[in-house]
Amino acid sequence: MTAPDPAGARGTAGIGLDRLSLNQATVKHLGLAEAAALCARHDIPAIGLWRDRVAELGLARSAAVIRAAGLHVSSLCRGGFFTRADADGRRAARADNRAAIAEAAELGADTLILVCGGLVPGQRDLGLARRMIADAVGDLVPEAQRLGVRLGIEPVHPMFCADRCVICSLGEAVDLAAAFPADAVGVVVDTYHVWWDARLADELARAARRILSYQVCDWVLPLPQDTLLGRGHLGDGVIDFGPVSASVTAAGYDGYVEVEIFNAEVWAAPADQTAATVRKRFARVLGGGGPGGAEPRS
Amino acid sequence: MTAPDPAGARGTAGIGLDRLSLNQATVKHLGLAEAAALCARHDIPAIGLWRDRVAELGLARSAAVIRAAGLHVSSLCRGGFFTRADADGRRAARADNRAAIAEAAELGADTLILVCGGLVPGQRDLGLARRMIADAVGDLVPEAQRLGVRLGIEPVHPMFCADRCVICSLGEAVDLAAAFPADAVGVVVDTYHVWWDARLADELARAARRILSYQVCDWVLPLPQDTLLGRGHLGDGVIDFGPVSASVTAAGYDGYVEVEIFNAEVWAAPADQTAATVRKRFARVLGGGGPGGAEPRS
Repeated sequence: MTAPDPAGARGTAGIGLDRLSLNQATVKHLGLAEAAALCARHDIPAIGLWRDRVAELGLARSAAVIRAAGLHVSSLCRGGFFTRADADGRRAARADNRAAIAEAAELGADTLILVCGGLVPGQRDLGLARRMIADAVGDLVPEAQRLGVRLGIEPVHPMFCADRCVICSLGEAVDLAAAFPADAVGVVVDTYHVWWDARLADELARAARRILSYQVCDWVLPLPQDTLLGRGHLGDGVIDFGPVSASVTAAGYDGYVEVEIFNAEVWAAPADQTAATVRKRFARVLGGGGPGGAEPRS
Repeated sequence: MTAPDPAGARGTAGIGLDRLSLNQATVKHLGLAEAAALCARHDIPAIGLWRDRVAELGLARSAAVIRAAGLHVSSLCRGGFFTRADADGRRAARADNRAAIAEAAELGADTLILVCGGLVPGQRDLGLARRMIADAVGDLVPEAQRLGVRLGIEPVHPMFCADRCVICSLGEAVDLAAAFPADAVGVVVDTYHVWWDARLADELARAARRILSYQVCDWVLPLPQDTLLGRGHLGDGVIDFGPVSASVTAAGYDGYVEVEIFNAEVWAAPADQTAATVRKRFARVLGGGGPGGAEPRS
């Protein structure tokens, strides 16, 4: 197909660069301290952290580095993967998720993102997997409330339903979140996972007050062999960010907007180049800036 | 992940082999006459045809071959691809779809399957693509009614939203079909495209009297490079055919059930082996037969 003109991707959502967050996965090869320094260098006020990089540096040291860099932690990735077949696996998942909640609290993260898990190994029963997830989330709620951490259920693209997450539409995530107190459980909106949904605007409206994170990246064709990596910089693909962002904003979300790109080419690029592109595209596509990109507001 | 045991895929839908249809795409390398002979040889009472193979043999000759083989035509694949950027392209699509309707009528097909088209080339506007599809379907309705052909809107997996079909959930297909008379427009349910949907049972209930085709194949991990080809024989993947089939049946669908498998390995296998496997798996997974497969009812 003829690809849309990258310059044609311009939103009117008016999301300023003061709301930009860089998800650490976008610069996968950097450690936490390097990623924090990158954000500081590029005037990016927030960061989405990954637990493996936090563990590498140590939790207390990570929190200190982030504070010293003056960064806000927009999310911690991630908890979830609740659909284990055996009791030992489920106990391990429970312990790991409780540890993740404690980490999110220590880091002051806006949300702990949950990728809830695919089919139970050896089973075809979607309902079973979904019930296990609901039970596991419910089990975490008191701990999340105690530590003031909000759990963000991320609907993941249906192509990952079998092996990563059976919660694969925003509507389903909202239904699940609505079963729990709003101070403890909400949803994560990632354009890559939900852009295709004809009911997206309605579901975003229904998600009001429950949107805990808004993550953006583009859907780039053709999909690579590893479909996890088919993401691109804003404007390089086909997603119409304007209407999605407008609905997210209309639903009351005014938090940070994370750029999270899993893409082998992006990972291979110099991190400073990636950060500069992230900023420029964010300004143009989400900020509604002119052809050269809006001026930073932060 | 641990794959489910193939022998564990057993439905209770009680769909007999008298309702089995072989979609021609499952034996991609056979011409229409060879595919018809294969069905006759394996006691498969119906066939889903593809237009390129019909054209190859000629429409009249194709119809005669099918009649002579005593086969029913459960579907003709396919019309659609309405989302052209230019007026010439749209005119060509209109003419091609009208030709497809005439072919479906001549072949006595239960439905003409529509794969409606992805984003308009060069555009990111999903709503535009969806409106163009609604207009194009509406434009075809009088001709479909005149010739007694039912148009089957096929929701296609969201991973194909950008480049093949922006109608990517059953609910959306039902909404679209409901805008037109039930004698002219309905929906196609293909397990590969819709199995992940948490609202599938509800949407199938809502689709009552509008289900024009039920196509089955399995979702096999890992997805291949060309995600169009990630399909497998019933029981080789993770789809739970029992609940889906029960909902399709409860919605009043009692027509043929097409096995449609796009898979390079299946295509490379001898056609007689493929047909035998299709029959055996259909009996076991959809018929609720014993371990050896149910006895044929036809």
